[in-house]
Amino acid sequence: MEPMTRMVPQVQEHLDALKERLLVMGGIAEEQVRLVTAALVRRDPELAARVQASDPPLNDLHIEIDQRCVRVLALHQPVAMDLRAVLAAVKINTDLERVGDLAVNIAEAVQRYLLHPPVSTPDHIPLMADLAQQMLRDALDAYVRHEVPLAERVLDTDDQVDALKAQVSVDLVPVMQAVPSTIEPALDLILIARHLERIADHATNVAEDVIFMVSGRDVRHHGAAS
Amino acid sequence: MEPMTRMVPQVQEHLDALKERLLVMGGIAEEQVRLVTAALVRRDPELAARVQASDPPLNDLHIEIDQRCVRVLALHQPVAMDLRAVLAAVKINTDLERVGDLAVNIAEAVQRYLLHPPVSTPDHIPLMADLAQQMLRDALDAYVRHEVPLAERVLDTDDQVDALKAQVSVDLVPVMQAVPSTIEPALDLILIARHLERIADHATNVAEDVIFMVSGRDVRHHGAAS
Repeated sequence: MEPMTRMVPQVQEHLDALKERLLVMGGIAEEQVRLVTAALVRRDPELAARVQASDPPLNDLHIEIDQRCVRVLALHQPVAMDLRAVLAAVKINTDLERVGDLAVNIAEAVQRYLLHPPVSTPDHIPLMADLAQQMLRDALDAYVRHEVPLAERVLDTDDQVDALKAQVSVDLVPVMQAVPSTIEPALDLILIARHLERIADHATNVAEDVIFMVSGRDVRHHGAAS
Repeated sequence: MEPMTRMVPQVQEHLDALKERLLVMGGIAEEQVRLVTAALVRRDPELAARVQASDPPLNDLHIEIDQRCVRVLALHQPVAMDLRAVLAAVKINTDLERVGDLAVNIAEAVQRYLLHPPVSTPDHIPLMADLAQQMLRDALDAYVRHEVPLAERVLDTDDQVDALKAQVSVDLVPVMQAVPSTIEPALDLILIARHLERIADHATNVAEDVIFMVSGRDVRHHGAAS
């Protein structure tokens, strides 16, 4: 057996392990988004507290994945698609860790929101949360399966999330103007919508990294169509 | 001359070029923050428009630096500190590009804010902007000079920025409650304070990457003291 043929499966094992860990991390991040939205909808401060308490596992994974990336680069010097896959993992790892942070930020805003009587809210926020979770799932599936069309779908969905976020403020400002006591809780709803939009942005970053990894085509700053 | 002695300077040249490009990018990002804050303070919509128009140079640098990182990893297979320096560059590049995006977001909020009569504002926002610029400058200097104490100073300053951001909302909520016509412009000030806080967070990310690069010590998720 030649040295080269022994080396390739080793890199592949590392890449498979990276994928597996990123999927675990993505699953946790997605679950955090689901739980914190449920805490808001059901007015459940204990559920919000659970999300606030569950950040460390994501942080541990973040450090572990980063170390795996350094190790595979140092030991195996991957090139071409394999190199791009490791660099994508470095970036995806950062994005998923931020999603975890944002879920914690949302949980804090939910806690404050629940101190007040409910503000009549549209369904935009739970819808944003559903879309953001779907985007995270699709972006990671696209990474694992090297599926560019799925990554491109994530980019398209981001526009919907942006529109919903804008609508949340448009709907709430007149409520705040009419009833001053709604100002504080409405501020937290606007903040939650912004955090969800940022989660969708992180899913979009992942999708862009996947497109670059697979095709070598850089869609950042130019949109999916260019 | 041995092959090794020829190879080391080549990697070093690539790393120096990376540093130089990151400094250029950091300088542009910092200037964007300075200009957009001046646009707010002087109520100058044209200056805000200039910031909105000046994003493409940062985006071009972002793509160029990313490609340089891929190239140096593929051609030179750096190890140890050099490898960590390239991976830090990949991450710092992402952070600086986001700072540019945030400056554009602030410019948009400034444009909306200037459509209304001024809300009596504290000096917290310009102070946050000054601190954020200083943090960006220090974090990049720490990267270039491999100076851990300077990076640690950036982490300390982030707490000040967080406190100022919280104070902006605390100060503005009673104003909004007393005068409903201030709600829309005050919302934009709160948003601007949050964007500045995120810029400071990106500087913090850079500082953490520098500490990891130089010392191999991971201060993320544990604070500078651990």
